[in-house]
Amino acid sequence: MTFHREQFTQELSELVRIPSISQRVEHKEDCYAVAEKMQHFLKKLGAETRIVATKGNPVLLGELASASRERIVIYNHLDVQPAEEPQWKTSPFEPVVKDGIMFGRGTTDDKGPALTILHAIREMQSQNIPMPSIQFVYETEEEIGSPNFGGFLDETLGNGSLKPPHSVLVSDSEFEGEYPTLNYKLRGMARLFLTLETASQEAHSGVVGGVAKNPLEILSRVLVSMKDEMGNITIPHYLDDVAPLTPIEKEMTQKVAAHMDVEKFKRETGVNELFTENSEEMLTRIWHRPTMEMHGFEGAQHLPKVMKSSIPNKVTAKISLRLVPNQTPEKAIERIRAYVQTLHPGIVVEGDGQPPSVMEINNPYMQLGKEACREGYGKDALFVGAGGSIGAVAQFQRVWKGTPMVLISQSLLSDGYHAPNENFRLAQAEKGMATMQRYLEKVGKKS
Amino acid sequence: MTFHREQFTQELSELVRIPSISQRVEHKEDCYAVAEKMQHFLKKLGAETRIVATKGNPVLLGELASASRERIVIYNHLDVQPAEEPQWKTSPFEPVVKDGIMFGRGTTDDKGPALTILHAIREMQSQNIPMPSIQFVYETEEEIGSPNFGGFLDETLGNGSLKPPHSVLVSDSEFEGEYPTLNYKLRGMARLFLTLETASQEAHSGVVGGVAKNPLEILSRVLVSMKDEMGNITIPHYLDDVAPLTPIEKEMTQKVAAHMDVEKFKRETGVNELFTENSEEMLTRIWHRPTMEMHGFEGAQHLPKVMKSSIPNKVTAKISLRLVPNQTPEKAIERIRAYVQTLHPGIVVEGDGQPPSVMEINNPYMQLGKEACREGYGKDALFVGAGGSIGAVAQFQRVWKGTPMVLISQSLLSDGYHAPNENFRLAQAEKGMATMQRYLEKVGKKS
Repeated sequence: MTFHREQFTQELSELVRIPSISQRVEHKEDCYAVAEKMQHFLKKLGAETRIVATKGNPVLLGELASASRERIVIYNHLDVQPAEEPQWKTSPFEPVVKDGIMFGRGTTDDKGPALTILHAIREMQSQNIPMPSIQFVYETEEEIGSPNFGGFLDETLGNGSLKPPHSVLVSDSEFEGEYPTLNYKLRGMARLFLTLETASQEAHSGVVGGVAKNPLEILSRVLVSMKDEMGNITIPHYLDDVAPLTPIEKEMTQKVAAHMDVEKFKRETGVNELFTENSEEMLTRIWHRPTMEMHGFEGAQHLPKVMKSSIPNKVTAKISLRLVPNQTPEKAIERIRAYVQTLHPGIVVEGDGQPPSVMEINNPYMQLGKEACREGYGKDALFVGAGGSIGAVAQFQRVWKGTPMVLISQSLLSDGYHAPNENFRLAQAEKGMATMQRYLEKVGKKS
Repeated sequence: MTFHREQFTQELSELVRIPSISQRVEHKEDCYAVAEKMQHFLKKLGAETRIVATKGNPVLLGELASASRERIVIYNHLDVQPAEEPQWKTSPFEPVVKDGIMFGRGTTDDKGPALTILHAIREMQSQNIPMPSIQFVYETEEEIGSPNFGGFLDETLGNGSLKPPHSVLVSDSEFEGEYPTLNYKLRGMARLFLTLETASQEAHSGVVGGVAKNPLEILSRVLVSMKDEMGNITIPHYLDDVAPLTPIEKEMTQKVAAHMDVEKFKRETGVNELFTENSEEMLTRIWHRPTMEMHGFEGAQHLPKVMKSSIPNKVTAKISLRLVPNQTPEKAIERIRAYVQTLHPGIVVEGDGQPPSVMEINNPYMQLGKEACREGYGKDALFVGAGGSIGAVAQFQRVWKGTPMVLISQSLLSDGYHAPNENFRLAQAEKGMATMQRYLEKVGKKS
């Protein structure tokens, strides 16, 4: 196997230079541009391609037929998080390589891992290694929770431009310390906007301060009442839907916890204040427990170092929920709406989300994934849960119930998903490519 | 008396066009520019002028000597609040007159009222009406709490460029409904920044959500614990410093409350949700009770309609305090710091402020002010407290203890201090000018 380092660097740079930030409508054209760039790469492999418009950003479809009767869907996403954090040391959309590491938004989440798979396929083509029939599905709304992906699947399955596969390969996840991972569980996610308007315009606190209610304060009061100081959600009956941990899950969690280096976790995420530093308790909280996170407020003051002495009139709180089996976004949002409105009926709650996913471990594709990791990374993979969410996986499970989903990691925790100075190591890309090649070979030989 | 409406409109437009926003360092030059513009107007009256630099924005000093031995300081401020509210119907720094009302940031707070006084003086000059010796003091940091005004006073009094007056005239306040007002009480104000850092960078809530503490949530929890749901401050001992209301103050409050139109107050401020709609209770809260107001957060997400699923790492809460006798900003900030740090020692509290002021009612200058209002506005003035703060008044009281301070209102509540579509009515300017002329005549004749 040859890793074409220069070509990889060049191609990944071309992808990263396109600021395909799905959260910003003004970058909608960039989401088309990144799909077109990837389409160009797919065409060079000989794939039939098509960019499918949705109500939001597009999905790039590609098909590379083979003699194999085995059919696989390869899913990656080409959209990225915003990159406005002041800690960026380089310009996030002008990728640079330093000491074998490429820095830039999207390098590891998820443009780099998408590209290693293409390089693996190119290598297999040059060596005439048999492959399964491949359908590529590249989404550009993963970072906003894939709101249109379900509709896309229904449509393309309906018109035959996407065919049900025997398995799905997803590469958008992280190693656990030194070990590659196979995910068997993903949390779901919901995004909520809570809006309260108490006045038609901002008012001078010298004129109305003391009699006017402050919507920022009311919303803050409501939000902090939903959790205790240890981060546990305290809304009545909210946790009723949470499935208890099975003995097998507990055992798998303990197994990974035994490998976990808590100090390294803190160093690599930059987080200094944790609710617990017990590794089993940490993994249990991240994989198996729901969260509610405050992210900020629209309509409140935010500029550095200054303060206007006015009372805001309309404020929207932004919160997100991570969901675990057997929660659903609809039910979670409804429980929050009901709770909030008992406290303050004027608060309008809007939101949507994707449910959590559980993958079957005992299927042949997971075993092939395990073998591929051993051969490609030189290390045994760990079966892990994950605190994150991939909306598309939940939608694949909806339309292809029972079809194996294999999530093979290529990123490291230190790569900085969603963080400033996001990066992807070329040495890791090389091993990722090898692992992906092994996996596709094995799937190709199957049946 | 002749009100030169066109000239007034022209000159006020010239002042309003300069965006002298003291909260924004990038507008520092505009604060110099507005001082120079006003200097130009003062020179046309024959005044000796001088722009005095401070550690922050400048102060414009002017002196118009007269044969009178009576010396008065006239104080106004030429800086303005930011004007970024989406509700502005016209461009805030491109003043327009519609139906006799000039719209623009600073029209009523405080450029318009400053200008009527100059027009009154011009009129008196043209008619050879005797005047007191006048010293003009035009500040450009009132809207940020006058942090350098005390230093300015110490310096200019020290070098003799400012002389102690027999009285001070301030016109930066509002009518109470239909009635002109004489303020005998102003709340003080402190601005606090509470900062908590829990991580070196933002972290993906899918990676750390459930174990990482969220500084936005911790700060919100601390802030809402400082008040109850009725807006009363509940920090232990915080209210110990608040002087009880005297029977005379209570009586004056009741007198004004009897005139107060609560529906009009709601309409003109735009505020729909009040803690109380009892007018006496409202005035008591605004004039005589301290407040604590949440204004927003730095380091949290604020962009409309979008949400990034990351946990903030460093957040600064912005809160302001209105202070009443016998609170001081130093003591209030210290009480908050002590309270906050018992809850979370990592929170850094920074802030400063100005103390509240009480003016002596029973002095001859207040009586002259009352007569001037009756003659100029055609209505008896009410003695009122005020919920707002004028940092300079506290500093004048510090250096000229016992010198009468007369605060005569020219603005209406509906003018929108600090609000979008701030405006000043030319009919009100005309009456304001007449009132100011009467007051200066009376002061000139005194002794």
